[in-house]
Amino acid sequence: MTMPGFSLDFSSLSAARLPDPGKSYDILVLGGGPAGLSASIYAARKIVDLAVLTVNFGGQMLDTSEIENYLGFSSIDAQELAGRFKEHVTRFDIPIAQGVAVKKVRRDGDFFVADMEDAAAYRGRSIVYATGMRHRRLGVPGEAELTGRGVAYCATCDAPFYRDKRVVVAGGGNSAFTSARDLLKLNARVTIVNAAKGWQADPALIERVREMGGAERLEGHRVVRIEGEGRVEAVVVQDTATGGEKRLPADGVFVDIGWVPNSDPLKGLALLSPRGEVQIDCTSATSVPGIFAAGDVTTVPHKQIIISAGEGAKAALSAYAYLTAKRYL
Amino acid sequence: MTMPGFSLDFSSLSAARLPDPGKSYDILVLGGGPAGLSASIYAARKIVDLAVLTVNFGGQMLDTSEIENYLGFSSIDAQELAGRFKEHVTRFDIPIAQGVAVKKVRRDGDFFVADMEDAAAYRGRSIVYATGMRHRRLGVPGEAELTGRGVAYCATCDAPFYRDKRVVVAGGGNSAFTSARDLLKLNARVTIVNAAKGWQADPALIERVREMGGAERLEGHRVVRIEGEGRVEAVVVQDTATGGEKRLPADGVFVDIGWVPNSDPLKGLALLSPRGEVQIDCTSATSVPGIFAAGDVTTVPHKQIIISAGEGAKAALSAYAYLTAKRYL
Repeated sequence: MTMPGFSLDFSSLSAARLPDPGKSYDILVLGGGPAGLSASIYAARKIVDLAVLTVNFGGQMLDTSEIENYLGFSSIDAQELAGRFKEHVTRFDIPIAQGVAVKKVRRDGDFFVADMEDAAAYRGRSIVYATGMRHRRLGVPGEAELTGRGVAYCATCDAPFYRDKRVVVAGGGNSAFTSARDLLKLNARVTIVNAAKGWQADPALIERVREMGGAERLEGHRVVRIEGEGRVEAVVVQDTATGGEKRLPADGVFVDIGWVPNSDPLKGLALLSPRGEVQIDCTSATSVPGIFAAGDVTTVPHKQIIISAGEGAKAALSAYAYLTAKRYL
Repeated sequence: MTMPGFSLDFSSLSAARLPDPGKSYDILVLGGGPAGLSASIYAARKIVDLAVLTVNFGGQMLDTSEIENYLGFSSIDAQELAGRFKEHVTRFDIPIAQGVAVKKVRRDGDFFVADMEDAAAYRGRSIVYATGMRHRRLGVPGEAELTGRGVAYCATCDAPFYRDKRVVVAGGGNSAFTSARDLLKLNARVTIVNAAKGWQADPALIERVREMGGAERLEGHRVVRIEGEGRVEAVVVQDTATGGEKRLPADGVFVDIGWVPNSDPLKGLALLSPRGEVQIDCTSATSVPGIFAAGDVTTVPHKQIIISAGEGAKAALSAYAYLTAKRYL
């Protein structure tokens, strides 16, 4: 009637241990954003053997500033919320490898192996794949050359360098308007350039940027070139209707034109959508039994922190159900 | 290039307004648990006209005690977390009807109407249905008669009355073990009775209860009768294998045998699962275009606060996409 004896101290804050490449884990959690961290908490509470492999704690949250739509926090700094997520996870004695990306996920008999970029490899009975997305590049002349010298992808990180400067923001969604807002707070003169007609950002956010003043908006224009000698000096945009070009003098360009799912490590193993997202069903199962996926890297229709956190919990519980059904636990 | 003029003050904490029965809302959110509240925040940030109709703030959270698996809060009292959810929502100037349940959802031309138990009715272009679940009853002699006189459904609410007493907990999942834990803290002598063989609770929780001592466990036994003159005096259980009965003297019975989805108001309108859950797809859409559903009342595979919060956000964003596609916005 009693459980096999083991002790578990949930109350102690332990320093993270490193995962053991010689060991086979029940669940490997790949990714340390909201999806991966929520999955880790749920898996740890089920007392399964798990390891977390992640580049950082927080994922794309770290690229934003203020967060006002994570239920329970009316308004919180993104770094602070990521810190709270990390603190929550490190309450559990979970081995975590931080600072390294996964290169490839492959089968090895009844196991899966995660080959890491640093040549380490970890084995697991199941996977929660939650590697998120990364910034999409413009792919125009000058972009690569001037990245870090005026070309930026993270207003949270880099906006402070553009106080009182002229900045072009490329994009029309929430990321673009969030960048614009951050820049306007610093008294930058901002031009938001969107290749499409219209704007995809939340009306509330668009309205806030409008109220702040100082932002010009240019729809139906695409960035075709970034110019500058050693630093950004201008952005050349093209009217998508007429083909006419315009040169916008600028000290910086913030590129907010979307994200690319980090699904390469699953290519050839699990089914991806045409956009490269990992195809999941409503239980977070991928096309490969034993591999579950959660968060922004998946086909989940909306990319939001609270949604990713929920999806991560779901994936961990589904992985647990899988391991139980397979009698691995 | 600018938006139609309107002002929105997100920073003020407004007293909740009442919804207007004479008005047609873009979105009616039915339910004020984690799913409904997260949906409300997302809908409000999209600046749609919405109203929230709910029995309370928090839903089933209010029946639990400590919460340790909502990402961002290592450990928080359930009432406190519900309070934070409420505070977050009341940051927005959303009309909220509190204290009344929805009776029926019906169509009226291009609109949906929510008929309330108090005979009020509200109209909306779309619905986010998030009414949660309610406690399942044992359905045995003595239960109804002795409810509130020893028969209880909420350890958080009622455990304090059973300090040093003998208590039977009916059930084998997380709710049952959480109740047992709460009762053991009060030095109650607890017998957990489960009709099934085995235990469905999280191993971590089972282990905690074991460590606390003082709980007896009886699997494969079903409660068949609750006895007592004016107050619970004993619980009669039956061995599901042999049919033999046993009388357990007890001062109280906590019934933790699951939940029933609050889906009656949608019966005959939207597709329900065999268990009575509202059938949704991965975008939170029900079988009725314009009605979205989220949280524990739906077919979402796991019933958890963080999952409900994510599902609510998803449902609101899907409702917003629906309204936009229909050109209602």
